[in-house]
Amino acid sequence: MLSIGVALIGTGFMGKAHAIAWANARRILGVEAEVRLELLCDIPEARAGAMAAQFGFSRATGDWRTVLADPAVDVVSITTPNGLHREMAVAALAAGRHVWCEKPMALTLADAEAMEAAARAAGRVTLLGYNYVRNPAVTHARRLVAAGAIGRPVHFRGWVDEDYQADPGLAWSWRATRAAAGLGALGDLGCHLVSVMLGLMGPVESLIADSQIIHATRPLADGSGRAAVENEDTASAILRFVSGAQGSVAASRSAWGRKSRLDWEVHGTEGMIVFAQERMNELQIYQNRGPRAEQGFRTILTGPEHPPYGAFCPAPGHQLGINDLKVIEAAELIGAIAGGPPAWPDFGAGLGIERIIHAIAGAAASDRRHVLGGSA
Amino acid sequence: MLSIGVALIGTGFMGKAHAIAWANARRILGVEAEVRLELLCDIPEARAGAMAAQFGFSRATGDWRTVLADPAVDVVSITTPNGLHREMAVAALAAGRHVWCEKPMALTLADAEAMEAAARAAGRVTLLGYNYVRNPAVTHARRLVAAGAIGRPVHFRGWVDEDYQADPGLAWSWRATRAAAGLGALGDLGCHLVSVMLGLMGPVESLIADSQIIHATRPLADGSGRAAVENEDTASAILRFVSGAQGSVAASRSAWGRKSRLDWEVHGTEGMIVFAQERMNELQIYQNRGPRAEQGFRTILTGPEHPPYGAFCPAPGHQLGINDLKVIEAAELIGAIAGGPPAWPDFGAGLGIERIIHAIAGAAASDRRHVLGGSA
Amino acid sequence: MLSIGVALIGTGFMGKAHAIAWANARRILGVEAEVRLELLCDIPEARAGAMAAQFGFSRATGDWRTVLADPAVDVVSITTPNGLHREMAVAALAAGRHVWCEKPMALTLADAEAMEAAARAAGRVTLLGYNYVRNPAVTHARRLVAAGAIGRPVHFRGWVDEDYQADPGLAWSWRATRAAAGLGALGDLGCHLVSVMLGLMGPVESLIADSQIIHATRPLADGSGRAAVENEDTASAILRFVSGAQGSVAASRSAWGRKSRLDWEVHGTEGMIVFAQERMNELQIYQNRGPRAEQGFRTILTGPEHPPYGAFCPAPGHQLGINDLKVIEAAELIGAIAGGPPAWPDFGAGLGIERIIHAIAGAAASDRRHVLGGSA
Amino acid sequence: MLSIGVALIGTGFMGKAHAIAWANARRILGVEAEVRLELLCDIPEARAGAMAAQFGFSRATGDWRTVLADPAVDVVSITTPNGLHREMAVAALAAGRHVWCEKPMALTLADAEAMEAAARAAGRVTLLGYNYVRNPAVTHARRLVAAGAIGRPVHFRGWVDEDYQADPGLAWSWRATRAAAGLGALGDLGCHLVSVMLGLMGPVESLIADSQIIHATRPLADGSGRAAVENEDTASAILRFVSGAQGSVAASRSAWGRKSRLDWEVHGTEGMIVFAQERMNELQIYQNRGPRAEQGFRTILTGPEHPPYGAFCPAPGHQLGINDLKVIEAAELIGAIAGGPPAWPDFGAGLGIERIIHAIAGAAASDRRHVLGGSA
Repeated sequence: MLSIGVALIGTGFMGKAHAIAWANARRILGVEAEVRLELLCDIPEARAGAMAAQFGFSRATGDWRTVLADPAVDVVSITTPNGLHREMAVAALAAGRHVWCEKPMALTLADAEAMEAAARAAGRVTLLGYNYVRNPAVTHARRLVAAGAIGRPVHFRGWVDEDYQADPGLAWSWRATRAAAGLGALGDLGCHLVSVMLGLMGPVESLIADSQIIHATRPLADGSGRAAVENEDTASAILRFVSGAQGSVAASRSAWGRKSRLDWEVHGTEGMIVFAQERMNELQIYQNRGPRAEQGFRTILTGPEHPPYGAFCPAPGHQLGINDLKVIEAAELIGAIAGGPPAWPDFGAGLGIERIIHAIAGAAASDRRHVLGGSA
Repeated sequence: MLSIGVALIGTGFMGKAHAIAWANARRILGVEAEVRLELLCDIPEARAGAMAAQFGFSRATGDWRTVLADPAVDVVSITTPNGLHREMAVAALAAGRHVWCEKPMALTLADAEAMEAAARAAGRVTLLGYNYVRNPAVTHARRLVAAGAIGRPVHFRGWVDEDYQADPGLAWSWRATRAAAGLGALGDLGCHLVSVMLGLMGPVESLIADSQIIHATRPLADGSGRAAVENEDTASAILRFVSGAQGSVAASRSAWGRKSRLDWEVHGTEGMIVFAQERMNELQIYQNRGPRAEQGFRTILTGPEHPPYGAFCPAPGHQLGINDLKVIEAAELIGAIAGGPPAWPDFGAGLGIERIIHAIAGAAASDRRHVLGGSA
Repeated sequence: MLSIGVALIGTGFMGKAHAIAWANARRILGVEAEVRLELLCDIPEARAGAMAAQFGFSRATGDWRTVLADPAVDVVSITTPNGLHREMAVAALAAGRHVWCEKPMALTLADAEAMEAAARAAGRVTLLGYNYVRNPAVTHARRLVAAGAIGRPVHFRGWVDEDYQADPGLAWSWRATRAAAGLGALGDLGCHLVSVMLGLMGPVESLIADSQIIHATRPLADGSGRAAVENEDTASAILRFVSGAQGSVAASRSAWGRKSRLDWEVHGTEGMIVFAQERMNELQIYQNRGPRAEQGFRTILTGPEHPPYGAFCPAPGHQLGINDLKVIEAAELIGAIAGGPPAWPDFGAGLGIERIIHAIAGAAASDRRHVLGGSA
Repeated sequence: MLSIGVALIGTGFMGKAHAIAWANARRILGVEAEVRLELLCDIPEARAGAMAAQFGFSRATGDWRTVLADPAVDVVSITTPNGLHREMAVAALAAGRHVWCEKPMALTLADAEAMEAAARAAGRVTLLGYNYVRNPAVTHARRLVAAGAIGRPVHFRGWVDEDYQADPGLAWSWRATRAAAGLGALGDLGCHLVSVMLGLMGPVESLIADSQIIHATRPLADGSGRAAVENEDTASAILRFVSGAQGSVAASRSAWGRKSRLDWEVHGTEGMIVFAQERMNELQIYQNRGPRAEQGFRTILTGPEHPPYGAFCPAPGHQLGINDLKVIEAAELIGAIAGGPPAWPDFGAGLGIERIIHAIAGAAASDRRHVLGGSA
């Protein structure tokens, strides 16, 4: 049986999610590989040590370059601040490691391109952490669309909203800067929506867009004044798909009450599919079938008929959670490393996602249609 | 007590709604005016006669010009096909009648401008049939926004969708033509959304847009072939408001499963308000107040605390229906005729709505930002 | 064409609803009868006069016995306090009038029996004001159940809740007394639920029950002390139906947040139907049909396919309101007076409803199974 | 640091859930104990071996008595068919092991009593697998009720429904027998509802009840005929609580469309709390506070403010799943073993739950009020 040695860099929100995912992919999904939690990296090193004990990693380090030299490590999980992704990913690929990197891919399109080039050159397996596409409800939606359950998809609408930057009194932070955060709502949230959208609608031909900084400045935490917010709180775009369909997307990090909104609807010539992330175990479908008096949106609760839900629970409607999506993601990555089908999106596909969010930012800044031509 | 003689032209969907509204405005809302249902006009005249008996009108005619000559008539309700609005409204105003005209105002911006000019010249009361702004839930939302319940409004999103043109097999009709229908989804549906949006967000500064004909041709009903669809099935726009807020709107007449969607959300600096027309007796509000652990969207069911709901029913949660909105509209019109506050939107304000939907159509056709400058 | 002279006693909540219903039954539903609003009765007489002008009645009186002597009156609407129903209804029937009486039928079972006997003796048309059974969504549900859409109905659950007596600080009133109000939550609310239940499930064989006075005393409005609450705030029952099905019902007038809850679900051997009155234009159905992966509750929005919705509005999803149900009720009564099918529930069927709510009260008081044997 | 050796008996639905829980309690919740997955038991032994490799257990056995003799084992997880719980739990306790046993506790009240006596005699830590009480939303509800957020709780309603026995064509199985399954819907589902109810409402004083076998016989799988169903498909009860509150509960295993319904509402003198398990990350609360025009049910999405949600994810609204509840359960058990507060419900409290479901069954069979007197 394949044995995979894992190093994980970062122990925050996504670091913990990766740790859970690596530790449970085989337990829950029965992947045919032994996963060894070899090395956990964070700073300070003491934290790495404490978390290694908690997460079940064999060893800890405070120096990420140590990871690259460790012969026991086959794959590196990168969950550090986004500005570090490029350097770490490129180095890990150069050192012959497979790479699982959190989204957004990088701060700039140039960085993302460098990462994609490195992946191509290295020929290793790469994967970006777009966990929402792993939801069995979303996978089922893709299957339904592909099977023609709603006819030909002709229109798409999507929204991805949270409220972590809604409070006008919130202190200024690195999130507000181009240098440390890159894009704003598009980078944090918009890319997730794009990842789901591409699977449902295919590539984008062109788009127009606008964006908005709601809070022009924010108070400095030390009370010494205010500093400028450099990246967008909201972004909106209207898209044309290569298929001829049209659609619109919007993202906000300042939308009070939205905690994890990632909602979308696919309009087809024979029906519609609607999804809401805050009710992530439900999928709604309307089909123009049967007597009009009995038509309506049908709310499907995910269950064992929606793989791989059944690996988590044999009873329908019992609900998966956000960390479960990451376990599925890890399992797909392991499958790819084991020679199975590639996991989506690798750095090539991930670059396509970056191109779209940067196209939205560019179109918003220039007030002109941005043509992607389906390259993304 | 004021006595108002009413003539109604048209006995279809909106004709009946006007008949119900005129007959019940005093009964339900206690307006201080006697309403006399004088004259009902439709073709053929026999239908007018039959419906006059059913609706409770004293007399019937098959010739709409008769209406203008009838000395008992003070106000004319126009619910005919949209292409007839201009001629009838201008004539009625010229004859010194008040005019209640269904939306959209006219087929073209030129027609709408002519109507607005006629109204200004005549100095009579005019009103356009934007019934959704009369919903006590929507009125309450405007009151909440104005009172700062969600802080400063900074973002808006709205959708207006139906599915009456979703079926690819549906026969070609006048609805598909510029000549008879004018705009497509924007004219039928989009203007309703704009009417609600303006009350919540104030005037529009500029916008970008796109639109789409999903079904390029439709089969002729007689089986003799197919004919072209000339107007949009969907339209999407991203707006900048004069206030500095931003937003997006979308309309579709081909959205399977949507029967009367007119949903919107206002993002404020301190909260959010959300509304869905298919649950028209509910309003949702999120406010950043109290412990974070207990925050959430609150679903308010309309009741007597949301005037004029109480005039329909003294018990909350018992639900108003679509025709009730028209009764409120009639009551506001009667109030305006009686010298009370003007009813909104008169032909002046209605022209502003037309300017926005035509700006969306224009921006979509030209792929360039369209500046309204707040004129609408 | 038949011409029907109407007298209406009472101008409160239900008085106004009857006035609206009588005035619009023909206008909206096209019933083949002229309805003359002859006489409006209330005290003081001045109020009757003012409301007659508003409601459109020809004449007014402060003495309800005047109604019985008026030769122009064919049918009497009784919307007075429940304690007056028996005397007025019996007198009106004895005077040869048809009677439309609000629910609950009477304060006591003896009173209801006397009314039923009077109706039988008089041979006139009677109807009780159970408007919720007129909802096109509910009618559609009955049709679906009868057509076997969910197989054989085997279980029922229903709840009818409001919060008008939830506040502990609310002043004591006539509602708290057996003498003036009779039963509590069962009389106000429970009977509505029973009216809907019977149409879906058929007659009740027997039941067990319990009830509860939440607020044993209430403060007197004049501050002089507290007085006892004599009737139930909540009641719950478990029923066996003659069909062999089983079920449970519960009613509360002290359920905070419930404004007009009248929710129920019918469990069948092949599916389930669910309804919630606060979303009265929606019906939910689950059917064990098609692939398990695509099964789910389907939310049907009422529309023209659910008669008589189309008479109110030709477009689906546009929503009926509570007063619209009363218009349908009036139309069915007019149809019965005109010799058409009897309207349900007449005083005979209404007595059956009373027997069930009194059986619940009796079983709750005695702690023993109460056998109805299907008589109700 | 405490080190705990775990043996797990059973590898089915709940066996896997226990395996996931044991393996992740420290990783996710940071409990201060090392958990060693020592021994996995199932039959045939080959399955135990395969699953041990997948689940991460060190060793495997096909003989559960081996577990008791293993010195490395401190605690035994029992997830076998319910009829085996008594024998295994009593033996494990006698052997000095802590015991985590799935619900229902046993097939009969006598068995449950024997288990409770054994636990008392052994003085070891016991816990029953009532995972739904671990939901942060449910915990928050208990906290709100205890803090008086809805005043004094006066009424409760609860429903627990699934549809795994809804299909009339489903083959007869052990589930239909008293000998192998004990109670029907009450044992499978009802006990879960009771576990949640007790935490919200306190002990039960007495109850009345009824139950129903919907499908009297079921076809034998081998086509040789039909066999009788011996236990209830549905059960309903009306309860009086020691506090003076009243309530009702219902359970069905034949409720089409319900996949994991465990819904309840607590009516208080100042508000109401409502929960629905199929949307397990949401809690609804209505409070009689602030202007009536702005009151409504507030939907709270669970987040870090609702411990221990934050240990799974630092961002609100991202959703926990069913297996996460079991991780919380394991962490509480580990805490109890480590000398922290006892985990609820131990075998003593679990016996109380059994007494209530058997009281419901007994009251249904006898048609008489069953008095518990708060013992449960």
